[in-house]
Amino acid sequence: MYRSHTCGELRIEDKQKEVTLSGWVQKIRDKGFMIWVDLRDRYGVTQLIFDEERTPKEMMEKASRLGREFVIQATGEVIERESKNPNMPTGDVEILVKELTILNTSEVPPFTIEEETDGGEDLRMKYRYLDIRRNPVKEKLIFRSKVAMEVRNFLSDKGFIEVETPVLIKSTPEGARDFVVPSRMNEGQFYALPQSPQTFKQLLMVGGMDKYFQIVKCFRDEDLRADRQPEFTQIDCEMAFVEQEDVLNIFEDFTRQLVKKVKNVEVKEFPRMTYADAMRKYGNDKPDIRFGMEFGELNDLAKNKGFNVFDQQELVVGIAVPGAASFTRKEIDKLIDWVKRPQVGANGLVWVKYNEDGTLKSSVDKFYSPEDLQEWAERTGAKPGDLILVMAGNTDKTRTQLSALRMHLANELGLRKADEFAPLWVVDFPLLEWDEETERYHAMHHPFTSPKPEDIKLLDTEPGKVRANAYDLVLNGNEIGGGSIRIHDRKTQEMMFGHLGFTPEEAKAQFGFLMDAFQYGAPPHGGIAFGFDRLVAILGGQETIRDYIAFPKNNAGRDVMIDAPSKIDEEQLKELNLQIVSETE
Amino acid sequence: MYRSHTCGELRIEDKQKEVTLSGWVQKIRDKGFMIWVDLRDRYGVTQLIFDEERTPKEMMEKASRLGREFVIQATGEVIERESKNPNMPTGDVEILVKELTILNTSEVPPFTIEEETDGGEDLRMKYRYLDIRRNPVKEKLIFRSKVAMEVRNFLSDKGFIEVETPVLIKSTPEGARDFVVPSRMNEGQFYALPQSPQTFKQLLMVGGMDKYFQIVKCFRDEDLRADRQPEFTQIDCEMAFVEQEDVLNIFEDFTRQLVKKVKNVEVKEFPRMTYADAMRKYGNDKPDIRFGMEFGELNDLAKNKGFNVFDQQELVVGIAVPGAASFTRKEIDKLIDWVKRPQVGANGLVWVKYNEDGTLKSSVDKFYSPEDLQEWAERTGAKPGDLILVMAGNTDKTRTQLSALRMHLANELGLRKADEFAPLWVVDFPLLEWDEETERYHAMHHPFTSPKPEDIKLLDTEPGKVRANAYDLVLNGNEIGGGSIRIHDRKTQEMMFGHLGFTPEEAKAQFGFLMDAFQYGAPPHGGIAFGFDRLVAILGGQETIRDYIAFPKNNAGRDVMIDAPSKIDEEQLKELNLQIVSETE
Repeated sequence: MYRSHTCGELRIEDKQKEVTLSGWVQKIRDKGFMIWVDLRDRYGVTQLIFDEERTPKEMMEKASRLGREFVIQATGEVIERESKNPNMPTGDVEILVKELTILNTSEVPPFTIEEETDGGEDLRMKYRYLDIRRNPVKEKLIFRSKVAMEVRNFLSDKGFIEVETPVLIKSTPEGARDFVVPSRMNEGQFYALPQSPQTFKQLLMVGGMDKYFQIVKCFRDEDLRADRQPEFTQIDCEMAFVEQEDVLNIFEDFTRQLVKKVKNVEVKEFPRMTYADAMRKYGNDKPDIRFGMEFGELNDLAKNKGFNVFDQQELVVGIAVPGAASFTRKEIDKLIDWVKRPQVGANGLVWVKYNEDGTLKSSVDKFYSPEDLQEWAERTGAKPGDLILVMAGNTDKTRTQLSALRMHLANELGLRKADEFAPLWVVDFPLLEWDEETERYHAMHHPFTSPKPEDIKLLDTEPGKVRANAYDLVLNGNEIGGGSIRIHDRKTQEMMFGHLGFTPEEAKAQFGFLMDAFQYGAPPHGGIAFGFDRLVAILGGQETIRDYIAFPKNNAGRDVMIDAPSKIDEEQLKELNLQIVSETE
Repeated sequence: MYRSHTCGELRIEDKQKEVTLSGWVQKIRDKGFMIWVDLRDRYGVTQLIFDEERTPKEMMEKASRLGREFVIQATGEVIERESKNPNMPTGDVEILVKELTILNTSEVPPFTIEEETDGGEDLRMKYRYLDIRRNPVKEKLIFRSKVAMEVRNFLSDKGFIEVETPVLIKSTPEGARDFVVPSRMNEGQFYALPQSPQTFKQLLMVGGMDKYFQIVKCFRDEDLRADRQPEFTQIDCEMAFVEQEDVLNIFEDFTRQLVKKVKNVEVKEFPRMTYADAMRKYGNDKPDIRFGMEFGELNDLAKNKGFNVFDQQELVVGIAVPGAASFTRKEIDKLIDWVKRPQVGANGLVWVKYNEDGTLKSSVDKFYSPEDLQEWAERTGAKPGDLILVMAGNTDKTRTQLSALRMHLANELGLRKADEFAPLWVVDFPLLEWDEETERYHAMHHPFTSPKPEDIKLLDTEPGKVRANAYDLVLNGNEIGGGSIRIHDRKTQEMMFGHLGFTPEEAKAQFGFLMDAFQYGAPPHGGIAFGFDRLVAILGGQETIRDYIAFPKNNAGRDVMIDAPSKIDEEQLKELNLQIVSETE
């Protein structure tokens, strides 16, 4: 037996017990006549002590040869420490070592295994197994595991059944690109890896499973942006005999309980907002509502007052930045530069200082009277001491730009509090969205999302105006989940594929299996999927997704530690009847 | 809201309540003046009633147009049934329908959706979504989900952390063949899909995670035998600072609790047996110990008595078949034919009837006296009324053949009771096994398994005799889990790769990342992995694995319903810089 206790559990009550601990050497203080070793395992750190008077000479020598990250086993008596450490749970005691075994030695690690390390990102990723020994990283992996358990407990209690859907499936285009897997047994043929188990979960609903969930790996072979992984984990849920309201209610409970269980925070409100309102008020379909700064549209107030720049634009819109009237000209210029950067792409900003004394001072005083500006203040909700920032231009673009500025300022002003959790349902998404590149409508969610019955009549005339029974769950400005009530009859599904530019033959070839299934008594159904990686990161405190993954991939989709992907050998290629046709390095 | 209750929950206490149910039409009895409909959902069946006197005419008509598997919603009053059905939990009540909505129609299903169906295997697989509506299939999927939850609950309570390991990894040969995945972002390079997360879980141990588990999909691109799936699910576990005894103890508790929770059966004994003993007593490293029929070796008793056939053979071995002395000559001949089939490949059987009256009659009476045969009876544990069957030949082959006969007879005689759970640890497996084809030793378990320290000295001289710190968990004659204490130092691991025929360069190229990790303080560690699919099937009652998988693949590895694998389009191939070089249909 390697240990009687972990390194995290001994207390003053254990005094005089003989114990055996195993772990890693965290720290050594060698004063010659006395040696202290901090021994670490997953559960904590316990101090070992060797001293000239009480420890045999050869063991003193052995102890003096220990190095950082050596793996050792120590047996000894729990004694009370002379100088206690109130910052450590085990800080009242230490082990007077009687037996010491070196279980494994260690090279000097390439970075320090401490709360704060001197290792850079690349080094830590290369030696991920050492990084994982560090408390903050280890705790993130444990946190992820806890979140998964709580998710399963909640859903299981509510009668959801976890069903595993296949990983090797048929390729069905759904937006992102499939990874494909050549099959040795079926020459010249390929499986695809799922981007989501969408169609399978719908078949389970047709199969009467009623409530399904799965925490499941999904895959997309896309260019990777920062913090996106080619393989990602999804909490996938589907329910039969539900309307939107039913799904929203159960996953409101879900989120509330999850935040309570893993963060011990009570979520108070769970507002709902239409997509149209979210865009109008925040310029964003996943607004962070932990802070205000709602948009105020100023068209009627700001146009036709002689300020040409505004007159020609579709939308004039502003926000009130709390307490920012004191910004210097330099600070404001910095903001103007910020919005002009190509990543934001705005032309500039008009500003209005609503001074503490109630006076108003703006960059457009030539064109607007104090009374005009007072109206702007009312519209944007500005109070004395605030700074009003105004943008103008094409409606969609301007909203996006002002939204970026709003988030930037909120970050700068510390308005996005990590310990606050503000969820929001965004509902009534458009069914279709115009794609400039392909010059046709695409499904905003996916082709299985149902249109609102009252909007179906618009499908032929104004397809962009048709609203879907689709909803997103937003948490602190991040989309953590999205779902919809699905189409469940063959005719509507066929019609939808038609509107998406599929020929009937294409629709049949790709999704015939689903439409066939709809002919045998498909129940009304709907569901939701959560990006588990992001959910965990947000609950964990807004850090990057990658931090919560044991073995993440880098931005080229390569394993951080084991060099994958890599070449496969010629024989394997031949067996698969494949040939690499071009190779540019 | 589609329903106020499920179809499984209404009781006599709910009388007079107005309820709304949704579900599938299971059965219709239309007597003209009265129509009964059995409405089914996941939770049960409830009877709806429409009658001339109390139901408006147009609703009677609507009801009369319903067909099997139509999806309907019915609102009405819970009333007491005139003729109650004690076989149904809802059998005391029925719903007098006031409102009826047809939510979806259905084609006539290709087979009956009943407990017992008229559909053959292929048809049921093609329409798997209809098969899943059948109670026995649905219950198997729910059972699988329950087993997974109980597994997680146990491991989580014991401090195991579920960590997700990558699915897209580097190809590392481990016996079975990898599926490979071409990477669009890394031209000419491939990921592999894991056959197990073995190396990753070992890295997690190096990383100090201490106790890891994962219920995880694994993949192998092999020719599929019946009841093997190219993607399968594993319960993967690893622990640091453990010896074999620690692993065996915790997974004994695990199995005991699991069987209790999902079957409400107490597992009494948990014996351990060495591999050598299992082979000697049962000719099999996964013996079913729910029944006896242990082998009796007869070399000393049966050789050199004038029976030439035995004299020349390495091993003479027999079993006593309980109560089979009454077998007719014809029945015995059938057994002889059975062992002569190519699948078994034996030369024949010698039989001895130990009659109820104590006399002995055999096929070799010419060579052996009754006293000789009496000794055989003692050696095989035969009692009056039993039949002794004896085989002879090469030791390994004969044991395998007699084991096949033993299992065949146990099945025939009903000795393998479905409600009995008899686990067994098989320990002390050989480290290496000779492979005739490649003419070298292979790792019996995998190259990371540690040899028993006391046997290391035999590695150079008698490698086949070296025992490993490896163990299998056998349940009712099935290997449900297997594991080992791993090598945790670089030198031993390098030596092992050497013995397996790797050059140092090959070992470094393929497993360098793991051996590098061992240099930074790898703790002693070990673990176990359970074949989840088989575990579920065995707990569920010894049925085929496929029955418990929602969307299994057929023997060619094709999805049962959606036609995968299939061709991918030219453009996709081009993007991956791949070409199909040969195509034979």
